Amino acid sequence: MNPRNAFYAQSGGVTSVINASACGVIETCRQNQHKIGKLYAGRNGILGALNEELIDTSLESDADIAALKKTPAGAFGSCRFKLKGLTENKREYERLIAIFKAHEIDYFFYNGGGDSADTCFKVSQISNAMGYPVQAIHIPKTIDNDLPLTDVCPGFGSVAKYVAISTLEASFDLRSMAANSTKVFILEVMGRHAGWITAAGGLVEDYDIPVVLLFPEIAFDQRKFTAAVQQKVESHGYCSVVVSEGVRDSEGRFLAEQKSQDAFGHAQLGGVAPVIANIIKQTLGYKLHWAVADYLQRSARHIASKTDVDQAYALGCAAVEMAIAGKNAIMPTIERISETPYQWQIGCVDLAMVANVERKMPPEFIDEDGFGITQKCRQYLYPLITGEAYPDYNERGMPDYVQLKNHLAAKKLANFDASD
Amino acid sequence: MNPRNAFYAQSGGVTSVINASACGVIETCRQNQHKIGKLYAGRNGILGALNEELIDTSLESDADIAALKKTPAGAFGSCRFKLKGLTENKREYERLIAIFKAHEIDYFFYNGGGDSADTCFKVSQISNAMGYPVQAIHIPKTIDNDLPLTDVCPGFGSVAKYVAISTLEASFDLRSMAANSTKVFILEVMGRHAGWITAAGGLVEDYDIPVVLLFPEIAFDQRKFTAAVQQKVESHGYCSVVVSEGVRDSEGRFLAEQKSQDAFGHAQLGGVAPVIANIIKQTLGYKLHWAVADYLQRSARHIASKTDVDQAYALGCAAVEMAIAGKNAIMPTIERISETPYQWQIGCVDLAMVANVERKMPPEFIDEDGFGITQKCRQYLYPLITGEAYPDYNERGMPDYVQLKNHLAAKKLANFDASD
Repeated sequence: MNPRNAFYAQSGGVTSVINASACGVIETCRQNQHKIGKLYAGRNGILGALNEELIDTSLESDADIAALKKTPAGAFGSCRFKLKGLTENKREYERLIAIFKAHEIDYFFYNGGGDSADTCFKVSQISNAMGYPVQAIHIPKTIDNDLPLTDVCPGFGSVAKYVAISTLEASFDLRSMAANSTKVFILEVMGRHAGWITAAGGLVEDYDIPVVLLFPEIAFDQRKFTAAVQQKVESHGYCSVVVSEGVRDSEGRFLAEQKSQDAFGHAQLGGVAPVIANIIKQTLGYKLHWAVADYLQRSARHIASKTDVDQAYALGCAAVEMAIAGKNAIMPTIERISETPYQWQIGCVDLAMVANVERKMPPEFIDEDGFGITQKCRQYLYPLITGEAYPDYNERGMPDYVQLKNHLAAKKLANFDASD
Repeated sequence: MNPRNAFYAQSGGVTSVINASACGVIETCRQNQHKIGKLYAGRNGILGALNEELIDTSLESDADIAALKKTPAGAFGSCRFKLKGLTENKREYERLIAIFKAHEIDYFFYNGGGDSADTCFKVSQISNAMGYPVQAIHIPKTIDNDLPLTDVCPGFGSVAKYVAISTLEASFDLRSMAANSTKVFILEVMGRHAGWITAAGGLVEDYDIPVVLLFPEIAFDQRKFTAAVQQKVESHGYCSVVVSEGVRDSEGRFLAEQKSQDAFGHAQLGGVAPVIANIIKQTLGYKLHWAVADYLQRSARHIASKTDVDQAYALGCAAVEMAIAGKNAIMPTIERISETPYQWQIGCVDLAMVANVERKMPPEFIDEDGFGITQKCRQYLYPLITGEAYPDYNERGMPDYVQLKNHLAAKKLANFDASD
C-alpha cells in the first residue's frame, strides 16, 4: 500500500510563529515519507480544502521550508470560516470528505484556536461516520492564549514579549518627557475576551514604571480608573496605561463601541485607546499620547520569544509523530514541568475536552485593585517570553522573510460554492 | 589652570539612539580629563541648567555609561522648552550664563533638533557678548530627519527601520487574512511636517506588497486616494496604507483634527488613522484594521538600526573632540561619501547655517502619483536602516536597559523661576 497523504491548514487570525508550526509539520512529514506521502496545505485555510485549492508543499525547497520558522503570518493564507454542526452544514462536511478521498488524504492537521479545535473534532467524528475515517490532529495557535489544557498557546508568548518591551520602551520615552510635557501614555492591545495580552504590560513594574492595566475581565469603573492614574502621576510624575480592546462598562458594552460621530454624523470606527485618552483629558487634563498596536503586535516576528518559536515548532513536529503513531482527535499541548528553571514537554489531550472551552485569566493573576498583575502572574509570564529568536536580515537591513511558491495541485472534482 | 567643566543636555522628543550620543559625549570626556573636568547633564534638558539641577555624570559607573548606547529615550530627561531671542528672554540667557559661570562650565553640548540648534547658536553668541564665552556645540538628533547640511539625523534611521519592518510584518499578516476577511491595513506614523518616516513604509514594495503612502507634503485628495487603494486591492487582493500624522487637506487643515465628537458632544482626540479608516469604509466598504505607532516607533531600541546607533555615538564623540580642538558654534554632521558600498564620515558645519532651516523630502523622492517613493529615495533610505544593534536581554526575556543614578550636584545659586 502506498503511503497516504496529509492536509494541513491555518485557521483564524495569524501569529508571528504559526509558520514555525507549519515548518515542524512539513519537515516531520518529509522525514517520514514512507508513512506520509504528499502533504497538501489549504490555500486560505480550510477554504482551500472546500475549494480544492490544495498547495503542493513538495514543490517548496528545504531551505524555504526551514525559513518558515523565521517568517510571520500564514504562509498559505488563513481564513475566518467556521464549519457549523453536521445538521446545518452537512454539504460542507461531505465536500471535505470527498476532497480528502479524491486526494487520498488520511491525515488532517488543523492549526488554530478554539473554533478550529471544534471543527477538527467534528471532522474526525464525521469522517468516521461517513466511512472514510480521517485522523484529525489539532495544533494549538492563538495569541489570545484561551485554549484549555495547555500551559500556553503558541503565538501568545511572542505577543506578550512585544507588549512588555513596547510598554517598557514607550514608558522610558514618557518618563523623559514628563517634566514639562506628556504625562500619560496609553497602549491598546488585543485580547477581546481574556486579559492575557494586557497582563504582559504589567511586567514593566519590575523596572519601577507605574502602569495601570484595563482587563476585559473587569468592568470599567471610570472613577476608580482616573483615581489610579492620578495617584501614579502624582507619585511618579507620569503613568502608562495598557488597555485591552475588549474592555466593557458595567452594563457589558464595549468601550470601543461608545457612540461617536464625525462632522457629518457618521459613526466613527472604534479603538478603545482614544476613548480612554478622552476620559483622562477631560477628567484630569493631562497631556497624553496613545498608540494602537493592532496587527503589529501579532506579526512582530522581529522580536519573537524564542520559547514561543521553539514550542510552536515542537507542536508541529509532535502532531505528525502522533498521527503516525495512530492517534486521532487529539491536540498536542505544552506541559510546564518545572518553574525554576523553566522546563516544558509536549503532552496530548483529547479534542473532546478542548472544543468550546475558553480559558480566562485566573482571578489570582489579577491584583486586588483590578489594575495590575500578581507575582503569580509574573511567574507564569516570564518563562514564556524568554529568549530572542531573531530572523535573518539582508544586507539592506530588512528581514529575510520567505515567500513560498504555493503551487496548486491539479483539481479532481467539480467546483463547489462554499457559503461564506 | 584646572580643566574647565562641560554641560550636556537632551532636547525635545527623544529617540531610541539619543543616549548613544550621550554615551559618546561622556566616554570622550572621560578620556580627556586633563582637558575637560566634570561633565554635568541637565536634568530634563535645558531646564536642568535654568533650575540648577545639574546631574553629576562622574558618579555613574563606566559600565552604566556604556549601557546608555543600548538604552532608548533620554536618560537625563528632556523637555520641550525653547529659549526665545535675547530681547524677549534676556533673563533666561543671563541665568544660563550665571549657572555656567558658577559651575565653571566652558563647554555646552546641546543634543536636539532645529529649535535646540537655534538655542545653541544663541548661547554661543550671547555668552560671548556677556563676557563669559562658552563653546557651544550642537549634536543633531531628530526622528523627523529635517535638519539641513547633514546626510541624516540620528534617530531617523531607527524609526525608518521600525516602520519598514512593521509595515512588512503587518502586510504579511493582512495578506494571510485578505481572502475572506480584512483587505486594508492602515499604519499612522510620525513626521508632522516632513514625510521621511512615511517614506520608509514604501520599502515594502520590494517584497511586492501593495502600499499607498500619504505624505504631509502632498495635499490629501480623497478621490485619488480611494481610487489608488481600490486599484491595489483589485490587483493584489489587499493593500497597506502608511499615513503621516501631518497629512492635510487642500485647504491646509490637518486631517487628524477633522471635527469629530463623542456621544456627549465632546471633541474627540485626533489620530489620522481612524479618519482614513472611516473614509475607506464609507467609500469602498472594505473590512480594515488600523494601528497608531506613536511613541512605540521612536523608542523601539529593540530593533534600532546599527548604522543609526553608530552614527549617533560617533557624533557624540566628535562633538567633544571638536570642543577640545577649540571649535565653537558648530554642529558635527554625517557626510555620505559613497553609496555602494555605503560609507560615511563625520563633517562639521557652522550653526549659523543650520538654525531655522527645515529640510523637506526632495520632490524627486516622491512618485509621480504622490503615493509612493522613487528608486532614488530607496537608495537614500536603505543604508540608514542597515544592520541590527540589539540590546542585551536578561534571563527573563526583557532588555537590560540602564537606569542611571542621576545624582544632582550641590546648588550654588538662588532659585530661579523658569517661565514655561
